[in-house]
Amino acid sequence: MIIVMRHGATPEEIAGVVAKIDAAGLKAHVSQGTELTVIGAVGDERALKPEMFELLPGVERAMHVVKPYKIVARDWQPKNTVVDVRGIPIGGPDLQVIAGPCSVETPEQMAQAARAVKAAGCRLMRGGAFKPRTSPYTFQGAGVEGLKMFRAAADREGLPIVTELMDARLLDTFLEYDVDVIQIGTRNMQNFDLLKAVGQTNKPVILKRGMCATVSEWLMAAEYIAAGGNHNIIFCERGVRNFDPAYRNMLDVTAIPVLKRETHLPVIVDPSHAGGKAWMVPALARAAIAAGADGLLIEMHPTPCEAWCDADQALAPDELNALMGELRGIAAVLGRGL
Amino acid sequence: MIIVMRHGATPEEIAGVVAKIDAAGLKAHVSQGTELTVIGAVGDERALKPEMFELLPGVERAMHVVKPYKIVARDWQPKNTVVDVRGIPIGGPDLQVIAGPCSVETPEQMAQAARAVKAAGCRLMRGGAFKPRTSPYTFQGAGVEGLKMFRAAADREGLPIVTELMDARLLDTFLEYDVDVIQIGTRNMQNFDLLKAVGQTNKPVILKRGMCATVSEWLMAAEYIAAGGNHNIIFCERGVRNFDPAYRNMLDVTAIPVLKRETHLPVIVDPSHAGGKAWMVPALARAAIAAGADGLLIEMHPTPCEAWCDADQALAPDELNALMGELRGIAAVLGRGL
Amino acid sequence: MIIVMRHGATPEEIAGVVAKIDAAGLKAHVSQGTELTVIGAVGDERALKPEMFELLPGVERAMHVVKPYKIVARDWQPKNTVVDVRGIPIGGPDLQVIAGPCSVETPEQMAQAARAVKAAGCRLMRGGAFKPRTSPYTFQGAGVEGLKMFRAAADREGLPIVTELMDARLLDTFLEYDVDVIQIGTRNMQNFDLLKAVGQTNKPVILKRGMCATVSEWLMAAEYIAAGGNHNIIFCERGVRNFDPAYRNMLDVTAIPVLKRETHLPVIVDPSHAGGKAWMVPALARAAIAAGADGLLIEMHPTPCEAWCDADQALAPDELNALMGELRGIAAVLGRGL
Amino acid sequence: MIIVMRHGATPEEIAGVVAKIDAAGLKAHVSQGTELTVIGAVGDERALKPEMFELLPGVERAMHVVKPYKIVARDWQPKNTVVDVRGIPIGGPDLQVIAGPCSVETPEQMAQAARAVKAAGCRLMRGGAFKPRTSPYTFQGAGVEGLKMFRAAADREGLPIVTELMDARLLDTFLEYDVDVIQIGTRNMQNFDLLKAVGQTNKPVILKRGMCATVSEWLMAAEYIAAGGNHNIIFCERGVRNFDPAYRNMLDVTAIPVLKRETHLPVIVDPSHAGGKAWMVPALARAAIAAGADGLLIEMHPTPCEAWCDADQALAPDELNALMGELRGIAAVLGRGL
Repeated sequence: MIIVMRHGATPEEIAGVVAKIDAAGLKAHVSQGTELTVIGAVGDERALKPEMFELLPGVERAMHVVKPYKIVARDWQPKNTVVDVRGIPIGGPDLQVIAGPCSVETPEQMAQAARAVKAAGCRLMRGGAFKPRTSPYTFQGAGVEGLKMFRAAADREGLPIVTELMDARLLDTFLEYDVDVIQIGTRNMQNFDLLKAVGQTNKPVILKRGMCATVSEWLMAAEYIAAGGNHNIIFCERGVRNFDPAYRNMLDVTAIPVLKRETHLPVIVDPSHAGGKAWMVPALARAAIAAGADGLLIEMHPTPCEAWCDADQALAPDELNALMGELRGIAAVLGRGL
Repeated sequence: MIIVMRHGATPEEIAGVVAKIDAAGLKAHVSQGTELTVIGAVGDERALKPEMFELLPGVERAMHVVKPYKIVARDWQPKNTVVDVRGIPIGGPDLQVIAGPCSVETPEQMAQAARAVKAAGCRLMRGGAFKPRTSPYTFQGAGVEGLKMFRAAADREGLPIVTELMDARLLDTFLEYDVDVIQIGTRNMQNFDLLKAVGQTNKPVILKRGMCATVSEWLMAAEYIAAGGNHNIIFCERGVRNFDPAYRNMLDVTAIPVLKRETHLPVIVDPSHAGGKAWMVPALARAAIAAGADGLLIEMHPTPCEAWCDADQALAPDELNALMGELRGIAAVLGRGL
Repeated sequence: MIIVMRHGATPEEIAGVVAKIDAAGLKAHVSQGTELTVIGAVGDERALKPEMFELLPGVERAMHVVKPYKIVARDWQPKNTVVDVRGIPIGGPDLQVIAGPCSVETPEQMAQAARAVKAAGCRLMRGGAFKPRTSPYTFQGAGVEGLKMFRAAADREGLPIVTELMDARLLDTFLEYDVDVIQIGTRNMQNFDLLKAVGQTNKPVILKRGMCATVSEWLMAAEYIAAGGNHNIIFCERGVRNFDPAYRNMLDVTAIPVLKRETHLPVIVDPSHAGGKAWMVPALARAAIAAGADGLLIEMHPTPCEAWCDADQALAPDELNALMGELRGIAAVLGRGL
Repeated sequence: MIIVMRHGATPEEIAGVVAKIDAAGLKAHVSQGTELTVIGAVGDERALKPEMFELLPGVERAMHVVKPYKIVARDWQPKNTVVDVRGIPIGGPDLQVIAGPCSVETPEQMAQAARAVKAAGCRLMRGGAFKPRTSPYTFQGAGVEGLKMFRAAADREGLPIVTELMDARLLDTFLEYDVDVIQIGTRNMQNFDLLKAVGQTNKPVILKRGMCATVSEWLMAAEYIAAGGNHNIIFCERGVRNFDPAYRNMLDVTAIPVLKRETHLPVIVDPSHAGGKAWMVPALARAAIAAGADGLLIEMHPTPCEAWCDADQALAPDELNALMGELRGIAAVLGRGL
């Protein structure tokens, strides 16, 4: 940790900081500059908190130099982690596109969707049985019945399933239906009890970024899961809150290279929620792959106009097909498969 | 709902929209402008969703004109709601300052804190037994043991207690210890299952604003609680995410008059989390009261330097005392008591 | 314009709005809903302003339905505009990469830079002679002397030059040195007098997006230039302000498809300023092209470590070369040339 | 400057950084931690830039510890600066409210406005002759004719005038009409040539905060003016861009105590532009004063409904009067006069 003293800090104030560092079992290095004094605390700085020092007289600010995350950090594991989902690798040379409807509606809709997902060449399927909706008066998902429909439809096509868990009380049900990948949604990225709960399982987890979470907070949320023993974590960028009413979220492509540098875990992107309009999805999907994402999570509905939720962001089957072609081309330029 | 057609929309496209409105059981009003056509859907527009129309050919955008929230809206209940906490009114002419430490640490600390809260003239006490922490490696709160300490210390001073619930699985424990006001934290503002759970109780709920929640999303989160039957809801502004690394959050005072206009429910402010530094708290607390807040939620620790979490934002007892004096003066200017 | 009345608005309040619309020479369409009344104003709504109505009693809000921009809008000119810079087309099927150093330093540096730009296959060159710097104590650019050096170096390679104009008082000098493309920087996007000044010339203008300008404000800034008679405008996305200290700006790729839909003018991207680090540039550059941008503005320095400003975001010549190869591949996937 | 090395940096990489520091004439202090190495550069660090080091192999990041601003910093001048405007002190114990219309329209309107400003007890008057408008098609201000009207109306009431300068080419005209306080608007906060121009005068300058400027950027913009010799600078917070479409800007009250700590210069607030609605102004004005602002800049129009611009944010004369009473009460609580 580094403690920067205020301009004109007294020797007594400097001594106070040194004493506090000593008391915590670390060693203080005082560096007297021409304008300011800077004090370094050498040792395991995770025992210290900036606020321990910022309260002391004469201190301007204190900051960690060591990153707060560890298991998920590339610093400690330089090689890419490849998450295995029933034999399908996520985070390796091959990209994975996970497609499917926003919400599970009927057995027929799911059957059609599963066939279209398969036909487009995607190897995993998404679908929501429990839906986080802004309003209590809108469709909240088909629930356990939806899980059952989803499982049946996907099994017929041999597709592993990805679905969102919103409540730790439902985790056993998810395990019972053998959900292949558990998705933690944007609104629950810092629902720490839920993170701890999935950390106790060995199921791959897609961790969506919070509405305006910093990359560091996001990595720390993953660290919660990892600290429980589950290292099968996949980051999913889905756009962040922004100031422009012209679009729902702002897809943060910069987060892709930044995450790939900071963590060894796979990074995928959800271009559907990012833009909120089907016509934006192909451009955003291509951008994500071009920026180095390991895969995508895309909404596709057999008949978008009739979808029960987020209708206007779902691709139709033929649109997904066309997009897959473009993505394959871009993947090839980057030496990756799809 | 209003549907704006694209420039140059054809009569067929307009007819398509009208047909969709008719099919939903509403009536369409077509208004042919000089440049654009605008179509109004008259009837219960909650049955419609903008995306039902934005997908249709020729549509530029569709928007609700009726607000999505109802029980919490001042439109439907013009008079202020006063939430009663064991005889203490929140939202009436008298302001309430809820003070106490960030986290429950020891029985001694809580006893000292309770005495200081009482001595400062505050009538409710806050304290965290379960703590949402960014890192899994930092103190996560004293848990149920902490609840017990808190209850005991506050009871000796006759102070109702306010504490955060992070996990619906702990609701029964909260009821067992008869927590007087349940706080829903920033990270859980859209944890819809948790909102539904507290909506089933009759306990007053403080609903903190999400990190970058719009006022509308916040009102909808309250509507989740209200829809379950619990109308004892208190909004708590606590600063929002912002672009300036100079301070942790940006206190949004504008939200105070906006909320007071939109809802009949009480609005309080947490100046401690907003700024993140004790030296900012008095200025922010005064601003909140001057802007029309019904009360404050303030961190006070008997010995801030030794606090186990968020040490640098807690006031010392004498600082709280001094602040209460200023706040009384401002309250008087606005014709309110404290 | 649409005026939404408050819930419970009286007939007198409605009549007041109608009278105001009539007085402005438009026609009012009153649509009485089940919960609210909505009034449309039919005619040339550019004569009206929302605030004319929002002040009237009983009005909830008023909003334009017609877009405020006209010359730059695709609504009025569906075909792509191709801006011609000395025979090089920007906005057509071929992409253009404009490369060069952040700032003009010495004749040798510029000569080397120009050769490297040419060698990489780029057809235009960038370089700053006048630099907008956050601090008054840092290098402010080589000034007119820099313009001269830039012109000479670029001419030897037959490259048109792009450079930033910060002050209308220097426009004549820019014309004297026959700057081929005038760049308006982020901090001046709403320097309306400067926009009017370049609107009086016939020089192509690159209009960078303001630090947190909405797409609509950006289009309106372009409309200022266009209204003066100069329609040779190129939009340049360069990242927006954001809440994450992990990177300088957040590249907004969503703006690319949104702009391409709203305007017929070319859209390019500056990946160098967006990320602020050279190692991020290739990922962001690829993402921009994949999302549909018409070109890029990239910082390249013959010896980045010695650059006088923004050193850490410049590519070295061989990095630019490698990137050009990837970009050509992606362009081909989209059916475009480079 | 502090340079944090990457985890696992080699001795050669460390030596490279030390050599670079030596070459710049500073002294390197190497502090070998348990996980990381941190290097301090002791000496005049303004000679260094973080990017000089972040480019070197093995470097994680580099950061200044000394603040980049100097003349405006409280570190170097602990006592408050009081700016004198024709005998009226800004920044002293007495608060100043500067009121007047958004734009200068007619001699009659200005005469009425001046009388109302005076009658309310305000001691300075504001009004715009040159208006920065988002659209080129809306009223751009009365121009020089407006300056003349403003001067005449204000002189009759003995009120110094405050008006916005948008273009350095008009500075001489401003001096000719002896404008008492020059306002630099939000969109020009980083129009560095304009800042340099007013820095050459001795006129007090109100420097409005940029749409999403950090406090540090704002202080640096002031440093541009100060570096030219003009230290009569007044900061004006006016709300920042935000993610909530519910209001135009978000008033940043936290900036008030932060600025008062960082700079010795006066800080005022514009509550009218912050909220964008007249009904929000009293709450925001009270909050600003309660938070420690030295004054306000308020829009008042003799007949708001007829204002030519920003009509819905102007107070009527009686509303201003009522507000002044409340503000006097709050000022008294803080030991200040109005």
